[in-house]
Amino acid sequence: MDMLLLPTVLGVVGLVFAFIIYGIVVRVSAGEGAVTEIAAAIHEGAMVFMRREYTMLGMFSLVILVAIFVSPLGWQTAVAFVCGAVTSSLAGYIGMFTATKANVRTTVAAQTGGASAALSVAFFGGSVMGLTVASLGLLGLGSLYLAFGGDPATAHVIHGFGMGASVVALFSRVGGGIFTKSADVGADLVGKVEAGIPEDDPRNPGVIADNVGDNVGDVAGMGSDIFESYCGAMIATIAMASTMSLELLAGLGDRQSLMFLPLALASAGLGCSILGIGLVRMAANQSPEVALRVGTMGSAVLFVVVAYFVVTMTGVSAAVWGAVVSGALGGVIIGLVTEYYTGGKPVRNIAEAGKTGPATVMISGLAIGMQSVVIPVMTICAVIYASTTLCGLYGVGIAAVGMLATVGITMAIDAYGPVADNAGGIAEMAGLGKEVRDITDSLDELGNTTAAIGKGFAIGAAALAALAIISAYVQDVSHRIPDFSLGLNDPLVLVGLFLGGMFPFLVASITMKAVGEAAFDMIHEIRRQFREIPGLMEGTVKPDSARCVDIATTAALRRMILPGALAVAAPVVVGFGLGPQALGGMLGGALLGCVLLALFMANAGGAWDNAKKYVEKGNLGGKGSDVHTACVVGDTVGDPFKDTSGPSMNILINVMAIVSLVIAPLLG
Amino acid sequence: MDMLLLPTVLGVVGLVFAFIIYGIVVRVSAGEGAVTEIAAAIHEGAMVFMRREYTMLGMFSLVILVAIFVSPLGWQTAVAFVCGAVTSSLAGYIGMFTATKANVRTTVAAQTGGASAALSVAFFGGSVMGLTVASLGLLGLGSLYLAFGGDPATAHVIHGFGMGASVVALFSRVGGGIFTKSADVGADLVGKVEAGIPEDDPRNPGVIADNVGDNVGDVAGMGSDIFESYCGAMIATIAMASTMSLELLAGLGDRQSLMFLPLALASAGLGCSILGIGLVRMAANQSPEVALRVGTMGSAVLFVVVAYFVVTMTGVSAAVWGAVVSGALGGVIIGLVTEYYTGGKPVRNIAEAGKTGPATVMISGLAIGMQSVVIPVMTICAVIYASTTLCGLYGVGIAAVGMLATVGITMAIDAYGPVADNAGGIAEMAGLGKEVRDITDSLDELGNTTAAIGKGFAIGAAALAALAIISAYVQDVSHRIPDFSLGLNDPLVLVGLFLGGMFPFLVASITMKAVGEAAFDMIHEIRRQFREIPGLMEGTVKPDSARCVDIATTAALRRMILPGALAVAAPVVVGFGLGPQALGGMLGGALLGCVLLALFMANAGGAWDNAKKYVEKGNLGGKGSDVHTACVVGDTVGDPFKDTSGPSMNILINVMAIVSLVIAPLLG
Repeated sequence: MDMLLLPTVLGVVGLVFAFIIYGIVVRVSAGEGAVTEIAAAIHEGAMVFMRREYTMLGMFSLVILVAIFVSPLGWQTAVAFVCGAVTSSLAGYIGMFTATKANVRTTVAAQTGGASAALSVAFFGGSVMGLTVASLGLLGLGSLYLAFGGDPATAHVIHGFGMGASVVALFSRVGGGIFTKSADVGADLVGKVEAGIPEDDPRNPGVIADNVGDNVGDVAGMGSDIFESYCGAMIATIAMASTMSLELLAGLGDRQSLMFLPLALASAGLGCSILGIGLVRMAANQSPEVALRVGTMGSAVLFVVVAYFVVTMTGVSAAVWGAVVSGALGGVIIGLVTEYYTGGKPVRNIAEAGKTGPATVMISGLAIGMQSVVIPVMTICAVIYASTTLCGLYGVGIAAVGMLATVGITMAIDAYGPVADNAGGIAEMAGLGKEVRDITDSLDELGNTTAAIGKGFAIGAAALAALAIISAYVQDVSHRIPDFSLGLNDPLVLVGLFLGGMFPFLVASITMKAVGEAAFDMIHEIRRQFREIPGLMEGTVKPDSARCVDIATTAALRRMILPGALAVAAPVVVGFGLGPQALGGMLGGALLGCVLLALFMANAGGAWDNAKKYVEKGNLGGKGSDVHTACVVGDTVGDPFKDTSGPSMNILINVMAIVSLVIAPLLG
Repeated sequence: MDMLLLPTVLGVVGLVFAFIIYGIVVRVSAGEGAVTEIAAAIHEGAMVFMRREYTMLGMFSLVILVAIFVSPLGWQTAVAFVCGAVTSSLAGYIGMFTATKANVRTTVAAQTGGASAALSVAFFGGSVMGLTVASLGLLGLGSLYLAFGGDPATAHVIHGFGMGASVVALFSRVGGGIFTKSADVGADLVGKVEAGIPEDDPRNPGVIADNVGDNVGDVAGMGSDIFESYCGAMIATIAMASTMSLELLAGLGDRQSLMFLPLALASAGLGCSILGIGLVRMAANQSPEVALRVGTMGSAVLFVVVAYFVVTMTGVSAAVWGAVVSGALGGVIIGLVTEYYTGGKPVRNIAEAGKTGPATVMISGLAIGMQSVVIPVMTICAVIYASTTLCGLYGVGIAAVGMLATVGITMAIDAYGPVADNAGGIAEMAGLGKEVRDITDSLDELGNTTAAIGKGFAIGAAALAALAIISAYVQDVSHRIPDFSLGLNDPLVLVGLFLGGMFPFLVASITMKAVGEAAFDMIHEIRRQFREIPGLMEGTVKPDSARCVDIATTAALRRMILPGALAVAAPVVVGFGLGPQALGGMLGGALLGCVLLALFMANAGGAWDNAKKYVEKGNLGGKGSDVHTACVVGDTVGDPFKDTSGPSMNILINVMAIVSLVIAPLLG
């Protein structure tokens, strides 16, 4: 078989596995009565949001499509853009569709089959997402590579795919993030604080929206996020190989092999992920934690071994394998550090600070968030240093691919979290027994840890992917402008650096405000329903949940436009207005700012969340104590930090980088 | 007269004026009874802190001194280092000594002479600080220039002066910042919240420490901060002129003139500042706001005009004057933007957010802080663009000098704030009448606005000064290593960029935690006194205020060592460990990170502070309402933001830059 067919073949194989696993999930009973009704409402709400979001995205994409089409970039790039946008949307849609089928089945499995059965269903639900992301990425990029990649002269067409994927990802992340947090904050503030009813109480009109939010934010949003990093890393590596100087090539291998290598590595990674999913299934009768760890670690180790053979078999220098290892190792370290900061001693310190009120909870959480950037950034530095020492800037791309290759299983474990969370919500709303709640609670708790690790991993991966794309941009421009340089002492580069660094703060501020405003709309509506619907508080009449979903949807979609449009427009304006030097500086500044803010916000938010949970477990006075009230304030501030503004940073930098790479041939 | 003598002569003239004004201040009556006692306690507390701080600083400086002495940099740099450290300490000491004499005299003037008299005393108290900073800077640098500056080969000796000034500034800022906020937070949390007594109540053992803190933080700390930016800007400009390539020189003027120009401009600025101080005195019977604005605007306009003649008379191209104007204008814009974000609509929005509790106060404050970086950063970009287009990177140095030249009056207005604040505190503690409190309150309110503008200005000035020093570093290294470049696509530069960007987050996190821990010590002690001293609550027995001052002093001095040592050590470790490329990248990343965090933290903190004050004026329910409670949380979080961690950022980047410039000759 022609090696070049490998990515597409494995992409199809992965999709088949995803389909089989989907079949296993939906064969599980979806229960009956209230359980089914609630699940249907969540599923329906999520689908309505997706349809409306994709309609809006379609219009926005159409504008970009026309712009690409009339530009000198040509129709091929336009086609690639459409492919990227469609596959990214599809990955999000399939993943979320499955997640909203798996959640209720996890609840039912917990009720009828116990913890092990519930874990299997939740994890399989997430696996469909993981496999879909990896397979569609490989299938899409593999096909484009077959069509355009063989010739370094047309290889740049593939960049359009990355841009399509990134634009969809940005809107999904921002829109989903605003939706989920406005629903969460709104439902909590009116339900828990004002009406005094518990979380996930079916009388609360905002509860369905809150559960829908978990899906559109944590499943679909995260899926597109990882999808675009995954594709971006491969695209950048291909681009660097296609424009690499002959002297650099000499030490590493021939150009075609180096261009194809990222696809080959990702194919190997997908294979290892499928095996890893099998490992989790086999270990499902162990504790859930052990099962998931066996799966991820198993496939990571396996991938590192297989990668050695892939590298040597394609005739590439073994130094490149070193870059793969550095990336894979870096991902693990960043994940572990995130786990510590959002679960270890720092969390207890925040809770302790609650003894002197909400202000000290805030101060210590902010301080911990800031401190948490140190080791991940040093890890990124180490990966850059190691991979570039081994094989130049090409090494950064390969390291990013190495970190992301086993995305099939890392994403599966990531998507498992919201499925388990939803399962718990359904159990609560349907009033199932304590035993069921205990099982879903334990699954949910583990899901929070895996979600935190996943977030750290996503930031590290996005940073390396973006850096690879930026390097590809620089190489692309230098290829045509021989004396192009990005000296930090060049005033234009400096101006770009400052503008780029300021940009993440601007976008973070816009998205934070958006959550505040959207939550306000929700609060208003939930209050109205409690006031105007007689019998709602008594539980004799059902709330109008669909209206809450509708309000969150409208609010989110309206407010995602500005940050999305700014991100796409900024590189174009700076690139054509101030030139490629300033744009290069801007990408550097934006990369730095995005990575720092992403880590700070995600970890501070995660730590506040878990500090509240730590108190709720009965520590320091438990639920209802003053310490708890103080920690709830931290958690509420942490919500937009960790689920809206923070994760947007990953995509923001990738969108800016890929747009720059796409327009690079037009600058000069 | 030899032009080269001008800076020293004007330095002496400035000091004479400062001495005369000091005489005017101390001739005002210092009152009697309780007023005098309280003032003496504050003065004594501040002096004790300064003595202990300078002892510690002396030891730390001795270590650096020995290191410089044994290094190939030679004894001259060591001497310059001592001069810088001593003059900086002296400026802080004189300024604070005067401020703690002026505070009580402002109170008495308000009591006996009314608003106009009180304004005069408070402003004159601040003017001594402003003139001392400017004069000592000119005198020190002018003398060193006479000794070493004439020959480009020995001009680098002057860098030692900047390093001495910066190291002292860093410790003063961090130590003073921790002291003031631990005392403030401690006194407030126990006094206002637990004991239920008003702010500045004499029964509260922490109140004297709180007032001491205003002086060691806002007067001495701010003074050293501005002093080191002021000197740093001149030093960098001299350095750039001394190593400038011949082609660049050709268009601008001869090397000696360009080297001397920053000193000449600063001399002119000092003259204009003295005139400006006279203008304020003349306008003192107008409203205080008008008087201060007439003074600053008057001297700024005058300076811009005089600068034109200075530039042309020294035979330098008029393009350089353009750079002066861009800097002066940039400073004004950044000040106005800061005023808007910490006083305008954003503040009312934060207060409104208090209706839904402390969490929304936090979210909206953080969002506003992030948004507030946008225009100042764009202004910095515009200044960089304009000044470098006119005269290359030398222009950045000149722009920084232009922004800082009238520091005599800007610093005077800045130092006026804490004097007025203290005057109010003394009036409250001594139980003076409502009319006196009303006058001091109105002066204090204006002081808050000027302090906010001053902070914005300090950040802008520090950013430009640091950029100039970094440019000087790059030029110095390139001078010896011809193919030296700082390409953003160079892996070592990238690693440095990430490390540098991470560093401000680390230091901010350390200083935030330090405030939390030190405040905890204070809380403990104040609680102890309320518990163990019988008759304290009844007002029959005096609290042991000295012990609180002592605890805050010990806590601050112990916790300022780590961030200070890290800042000095980081460039040395990276420079010698990873080389001049990585160090250059590190400076770029640190500059970006410091500017962004400084603006974010200062403006968020200022906005929270004023939102609380807005509510306290009777809006949205006024004091004691739920909205007020929510805003107090914001203010408490804002305290370390705006007065400890935020301002440390200005000096952090300057310390890192100047240390790099000093060690530059040893790298390569």
